[in-house]
Amino acid sequence: MPASASASDVTKPEPLVIQEQGSFAVGGTVSTTPGTYDNNAPTAEGQTLHGDHAYVFYQAPQNPKPLPIVMLHGAYQSGRSWETTPDGREGFQNIFLRRGYSTYIVDQPRRGRAGNSTVGTTIEPTPYDQLFFDQFRIGKWPNYFSNVQFSRDPTALDQFFRSVTPNTGPFDANVISDAMSALFDKTGPGILFTHSQAGGPGWLTAIRNPNVKGIVALEPGSGFIFPEGEVPADMPSAAGTLKGEAVPAADFEKLTRLPIVIYYGDNFPTEPTAERGQDNWRVRLAMAKLWVAAVNKHGGDATLVHLPDIGIKGGTHFLMSDLNNVEIADQVSKFLADKKLD
Amino acid sequence: MPASASASDVTKPEPLVIQEQGSFAVGGTVSTTPGTYDNNAPTAEGQTLHGDHAYVFYQAPQNPKPLPIVMLHGAYQSGRSWETTPDGREGFQNIFLRRGYSTYIVDQPRRGRAGNSTVGTTIEPTPYDQLFFDQFRIGKWPNYFSNVQFSRDPTALDQFFRSVTPNTGPFDANVISDAMSALFDKTGPGILFTHSQAGGPGWLTAIRNPNVKGIVALEPGSGFIFPEGEVPADMPSAAGTLKGEAVPAADFEKLTRLPIVIYYGDNFPTEPTAERGQDNWRVRLAMAKLWVAAVNKHGGDATLVHLPDIGIKGGTHFLMSDLNNVEIADQVSKFLADKKLD
Repeated sequence: MPASASASDVTKPEPLVIQEQGSFAVGGTVSTTPGTYDNNAPTAEGQTLHGDHAYVFYQAPQNPKPLPIVMLHGAYQSGRSWETTPDGREGFQNIFLRRGYSTYIVDQPRRGRAGNSTVGTTIEPTPYDQLFFDQFRIGKWPNYFSNVQFSRDPTALDQFFRSVTPNTGPFDANVISDAMSALFDKTGPGILFTHSQAGGPGWLTAIRNPNVKGIVALEPGSGFIFPEGEVPADMPSAAGTLKGEAVPAADFEKLTRLPIVIYYGDNFPTEPTAERGQDNWRVRLAMAKLWVAAVNKHGGDATLVHLPDIGIKGGTHFLMSDLNNVEIADQVSKFLADKKLD
Repeated sequence: MPASASASDVTKPEPLVIQEQGSFAVGGTVSTTPGTYDNNAPTAEGQTLHGDHAYVFYQAPQNPKPLPIVMLHGAYQSGRSWETTPDGREGFQNIFLRRGYSTYIVDQPRRGRAGNSTVGTTIEPTPYDQLFFDQFRIGKWPNYFSNVQFSRDPTALDQFFRSVTPNTGPFDANVISDAMSALFDKTGPGILFTHSQAGGPGWLTAIRNPNVKGIVALEPGSGFIFPEGEVPADMPSAAGTLKGEAVPAADFEKLTRLPIVIYYGDNFPTEPTAERGQDNWRVRLAMAKLWVAAVNKHGGDATLVHLPDIGIKGGTHFLMSDLNNVEIADQVSKFLADKKLD
């Protein structure tokens, strides 16, 4: 917040120099209702509906690096995931702008500002705050994990809970990856960051569009795709059963043509536990390891980093907005440099 | 779009120098379900839901003017209304940043990225494109008004239709103005721009919060409030009946303490017509004239500008993104200067 921050900030960041910024819709479909439109007694007849597009807010710094970064949020979230952190610091949007990348912040089809869906839904106010606290590994409600990279300031938790926003139509990984592919047609070659549920649509986007030149997946949560015949066994957990999904081998092969890195945070075990919020991630990490092995077996270049293994502790499910998100961004920057994507 | 624009733009705009940018939630409530939360078998019991807040994206230029501008969208829209125009030019967000104002772009409670509502709803995909074309005065479908300030490029109409996004809970002017008032608590003194349906919540925000130092209302469409006993007669039209609303005189008086300007565009008559999309605005303009007279009768400072009267023709309902939106912004800047709000 400018008003409150300006008085107290002793280390005011350098201004951002933005060559261009704006927003647009991309992808989507048009559904048409048969009949004849009557201008002065309108019904559905003869009218159209534009829906299932993504919404994108973009910013280009001066002299940007050649490859822009496209950021796709996870479940219950919007592009807001990548903006200011719950405790008021800069998120990946600003951090990577400062590092010279153009950024494209997406609201996926049927979410946020891309709310117009061609398929209806019912939104029930569902109290999920405590479940999210557990499942996104801030702690075990009402207690924070001792090392957690999340501010204990109650306003941070309030902001975090208010970043939640519902689906305005059914979640559909194909609808999302179609719109994302249309976005990569517009951007040209670029890098895709995904968070959580966006992992699956992210792989599908790279299969659809060769302009995806690298993927940084933060805690992919579902949509692990394997070549037909190589899908691993189901993985039961205290939070439900995680299943791999089959795709044609020719599609899977496309994922071997770009560098991919996956990061997971802290505070869940690799052995089964009755703790639902943690066991959920045990199986996701296990499935991700099999997925990385499958990509590499087919000649790909995928890496999985379980952050505690390299001494980065306390990570929640929201690595891009954790208290150490600059350290996480440094890891990502190193990956991009190593793979010549910067 | 950076990718396509950079090659063809001969008059590339100066970069924006942004001292700070970010986003936050503001206002809202917390609803609590009775019972005890079970971490490992979660149900609604004992859980909370944060909802009914606004989402705000802010940018502060270097050395901003003292009063920021808060922009609140209308029905079926989000903060996206103020960003890039349907034909890809800069909207009021960038235009007023370039003129030195900090900007706060709002998604109202139960819309866009502020989708978490404490009250449920059902979203039915509703084909409204042709109705919107008429009602937002682009033309009489399928024909454009001859002088309309809207690009004939089909991609502009596609972008316009895709700026539509549904309510994720019931529209509630009080919920919106509560969140808006919380925002003005954060920003301190500032200027409020409203569009269309936001007119009503805008007046209520100014009643609730003395930090609203001026209002620029673009085509207010509903929520015209009058002192009890002074509500004008209902105004029937081909698009339904417009009704004034009563508020306590002491509340209304608060609207006399700040300068207010209202703008309406072109292509609707002041006499009744059977054309639904146009007659809708005939009564809104008529009601707005009575409203301005009431504010001024009580000692206020309200102005209504019917733009064709001053030679500005072809305006749609979306004045801030029309082809002549810089000319509209010039009108607004002149108002702000005249009222010493700049």
